[in-house]
Amino acid sequence: MPDPDRVLITGGAGFLGGYLCDRLIARGHEVLCVDNLLTGRAAHIAHLRDHPRFQFVEEDVTQGLDVDGPLDAVLHFASPASPKDYLEFPVETLRVGAFGTFHTLELAEKKGARFLLASTSEVYGDPLVNPQPETYRGNVNPTSPRGVYDSAKRFAESMTMAYLRYRGLDTRIVRIFNTYGPQMRRDDGRVISNFIVQALAGAPLTVHGDGTQTRSFCYVDDMVAGILAVLGQSSDRTHAQRTDRAFLHNKSAEAEESVHDPINLANPEAHSVLDIAHLVLELTGSRSPITFLPRPVDDPRVRRPDISRARRLLGWEPRVSLEEGLRHTIGYFRELLARG
Amino acid sequence: MPDPDRVLITGGAGFLGGYLCDRLIARGHEVLCVDNLLTGRAAHIAHLRDHPRFQFVEEDVTQGLDVDGPLDAVLHFASPASPKDYLEFPVETLRVGAFGTFHTLELAEKKGARFLLASTSEVYGDPLVNPQPETYRGNVNPTSPRGVYDSAKRFAESMTMAYLRYRGLDTRIVRIFNTYGPQMRRDDGRVISNFIVQALAGAPLTVHGDGTQTRSFCYVDDMVAGILAVLGQSSDRTHAQRTDRAFLHNKSAEAEESVHDPINLANPEAHSVLDIAHLVLELTGSRSPITFLPRPVDDPRVRRPDISRARRLLGWEPRVSLEEGLRHTIGYFRELLARG
Repeated sequence: MPDPDRVLITGGAGFLGGYLCDRLIARGHEVLCVDNLLTGRAAHIAHLRDHPRFQFVEEDVTQGLDVDGPLDAVLHFASPASPKDYLEFPVETLRVGAFGTFHTLELAEKKGARFLLASTSEVYGDPLVNPQPETYRGNVNPTSPRGVYDSAKRFAESMTMAYLRYRGLDTRIVRIFNTYGPQMRRDDGRVISNFIVQALAGAPLTVHGDGTQTRSFCYVDDMVAGILAVLGQSSDRTHAQRTDRAFLHNKSAEAEESVHDPINLANPEAHSVLDIAHLVLELTGSRSPITFLPRPVDDPRVRRPDISRARRLLGWEPRVSLEEGLRHTIGYFRELLARG
Repeated sequence: MPDPDRVLITGGAGFLGGYLCDRLIARGHEVLCVDNLLTGRAAHIAHLRDHPRFQFVEEDVTQGLDVDGPLDAVLHFASPASPKDYLEFPVETLRVGAFGTFHTLELAEKKGARFLLASTSEVYGDPLVNPQPETYRGNVNPTSPRGVYDSAKRFAESMTMAYLRYRGLDTRIVRIFNTYGPQMRRDDGRVISNFIVQALAGAPLTVHGDGTQTRSFCYVDDMVAGILAVLGQSSDRTHAQRTDRAFLHNKSAEAEESVHDPINLANPEAHSVLDIAHLVLELTGSRSPITFLPRPVDDPRVRRPDISRARRLLGWEPRVSLEEGLRHTIGYFRELLARG
């Protein structure tokens, strides 16, 4: 399947989902975008709604999912994804990670479609190992308030691997680190959108904790290119291998690098939250002060990806510098705020 | 609710479930036992089926669950629980952890019942900290073959905590370590039942790995007493506290010891697998040899509980020594095998 013809994407009206719809349409695919608009926004896909190869279905994937006709790929991106959102919708986040993943896997199986799960750097929790390779098992508290998202995504990964191993489905898992760019929601509570909106409004930039915690930020064009590279890669296991118990339980076979195992997608450059604040102030020319707020429970101190697997398997790496990406994003928010 | 009147238990035809049905009936409760008999056995509850306060419902809790009349407590024990079982039923294990937990929580909420989740020491994975207190976050690989059970139970814990925090449900989570005793299935692939059945048959005792990996084994009577102690404990949070966001996101409030946080239940005595083998040979008088097989992928090397929270909160601790417990269990299997 070098070129999937008909692609279904859940969470297609989200920040990343909207970009994926765009790129897939631009590449000539037919796109079915499914979203319940809980945290997604119709505006992300408004420009596509009359496109002959685009279809929007307003549906909650936790309730089950069926579509007519063939599907070549199913991309499961539906979920509240910012801490602010999943703390507001904890049960929905758990449900879409479990029920949504199950229903989309079942649909992919029924249609013989390739499946791609949008997982997250949050599966590493507050990591004790830096940078994090995909083999790092994470430091996640399942019972903390923010455990809902981490557990939902870890569960979704387990279920995806079970369909790879026991059902012979052709599955992919991308672990997406912080991504930013134009079209971010101004109110999603993420560091970059918060800082830009605050800087442009002349309001204080609010740093949680002392600002020395580090993050990696990937520009959205790079991220989308990475996701599509994972989706486009040929399977490196035969169906027989994928469902052969002996193969599955053999450590050496499992240890071989495979496009079916989780793949980190991120910009590996680490920046402290305070550095980002200063860069945003510089690029916006804002004179906002910086204020410090308490650090939320279980907010990770350091998170930095090891992307060597993506480099090796896909020949992919990010190209857009933080400064360039921030300029585009600031331009977007400047225009958005000017419109009121 | 010092004395719940009407109790529903999922997985009530399992090893622990069967004992719980027995004890609850003996204490004067009305018991609804729900089980789909995937890994549970009707034999575990056969002696109760004509009891006027006992009702068996053969149902799959992943499909939803509703019962007439009031409920005072819902105990969610349904799940394949031995590695052999959950590797045979990986998707079912994930489904009962997610869908089963969701449906039982919803039922408890609807009935205003107390909820107790049977979680597991497997949430600690292959621990890097020994012994494991409840605050240890575990070393779990969500994408390994045995990740299905670990992820399902971690997910179930997250969902349970979400209902405690955001819905004000009175929930309990017990993390159950290895438990053994009469009524264990002879074919569940667990260390103690394997060894006893092999020893009594004069077959070689099969040790996976070199046998130096340690485990803790709790006699079933002790475990059931612990579970009922957790269930019987009064709530230590007001409903208002449980649903107050400020309280929830406050580290110091969360750090207070609470009966609503997970509680390890186990016998803290550690024994190497090889020591158990020798003790079983001694107590059975068997002359079976010991043979060594490869260690399964992600089999934990060491697992030893810290039960100080259970001691402090419940005044509970195990009373039955390994030798005494093994004698009872060997007696059971001897009789079972004699019957053919």
